[in-house]
Amino acid sequence: MRTRFDQQLEKLHVELIKMGSLCEQAITLAASSLEVQEENTLHKVAALESEVDAKEREIEDICMRLLLQQQPVARDLRVISAALKLISDLERIGDQAADISDLTPYIVNSSIASKVQIHDMAKATIDMVTKSIDAFVKNDLELAEKVIESDDIVDDLFNKIREELILEIQGKNNDPRAAIDILMAAKYFERIGDHAVNVAEWVQYSITGVHKSNEHHIADR
Amino acid sequence: MRTRFDQQLEKLHVELIKMGSLCEQAITLAASSLEVQEENTLHKVAALESEVDAKEREIEDICMRLLLQQQPVARDLRVISAALKLISDLERIGDQAADISDLTPYIVNSSIASKVQIHDMAKATIDMVTKSIDAFVKNDLELAEKVIESDDIVDDLFNKIREELILEIQGKNNDPRAAIDILMAAKYFERIGDHAVNVAEWVQYSITGVHKSNEHHIADR
Repeated sequence: MRTRFDQQLEKLHVELIKMGSLCEQAITLAASSLEVQEENTLHKVAALESEVDAKEREIEDICMRLLLQQQPVARDLRVISAALKLISDLERIGDQAADISDLTPYIVNSSIASKVQIHDMAKATIDMVTKSIDAFVKNDLELAEKVIESDDIVDDLFNKIREELILEIQGKNNDPRAAIDILMAAKYFERIGDHAVNVAEWVQYSITGVHKSNEHHIADR
Repeated sequence: MRTRFDQQLEKLHVELIKMGSLCEQAITLAASSLEVQEENTLHKVAALESEVDAKEREIEDICMRLLLQQQPVARDLRVISAALKLISDLERIGDQAADISDLTPYIVNSSIASKVQIHDMAKATIDMVTKSIDAFVKNDLELAEKVIESDDIVDDLFNKIREELILEIQGKNNDPRAAIDILMAAKYFERIGDHAVNVAEWVQYSITGVHKSNEHHIADR
């Protein structure tokens, strides 16, 4: 028989999946906005980002109620505090997507964006975000580790794009303004990957009770 | 007569001030590392960043104990949940400082760094971090608003540096690699300012019960 805690936990999982899907939509839209000028993309992403923020508040309330009403201990307490932490990573992912879409006006008219693998970065980071939330909902330690490993793919893509853009800048009739904004966009995607790794590390913590801090943020740079 | 809650809250304040001061040290060291090559700066900042992470765990435990043992409601509950949120902003500030120091090798040998106001950005962001924690400890709504307003100074400095670097790149015998890394450093400082604003917004929430989401992240870009 399911306890009240289990019911509230299921509600938490459902809302986390929704929050994750909002992030994925925001990343996808932001990425496409870098190549194709679309009406109101900036506003669409900003709207999604507000939805992400609202969802964070909602999930926070669920977690607080769980903490105060259910007095969880041990594993259950770790699950709730992990959820409280990972939603702030998801919220930042929404911010980063909005930051990327803000760069659109300067990038979309440049030929450079299509030359670099910005979409590969988007695809890779969306995959990381989806899997990291999956790992939490399914208590899948192996999947969490996969997410952490795949951060290297995103970091490698960033470094590759960075080198390509430096060549662009050094080349004839270069467009440093566009190149720099594309680099910023790539950096935001790399950050999204870092946040997905943070989520995966919170999953590890909720399952194992051990949190391997955020050192990878440095190690990979 | 002081209650057990007040005593634990005071402990929370003390640890938050320590965490803030660790962030300030990390920012200062990271900023200086961009202009003067020093032995082990990278490791010093990385060590400070680990201390920040450890302090976050410690404060998290204090907050969880407060929530579970004291069952706070209304204002008291907001104060604890605000603390739980703002420490993840402080933790990110530690990451950003480490990210800045990681850029040192590429920047320190370039003449460009000294030409831009990286140190003004460092000074401004350190000031924001200090004030935002002060505002929390002293329940100072006015000070929190000051922090939020001063984010414009940091954003303006970033845009100014950005334009200067674009000119550098376009100029003769340019060094795009160094220019791009300095731009990244400036971006990290701008992010630190954003996180200080987040802290200030959590202070507003803990006092007023209203949280004006993170829209400024977009509005300012």
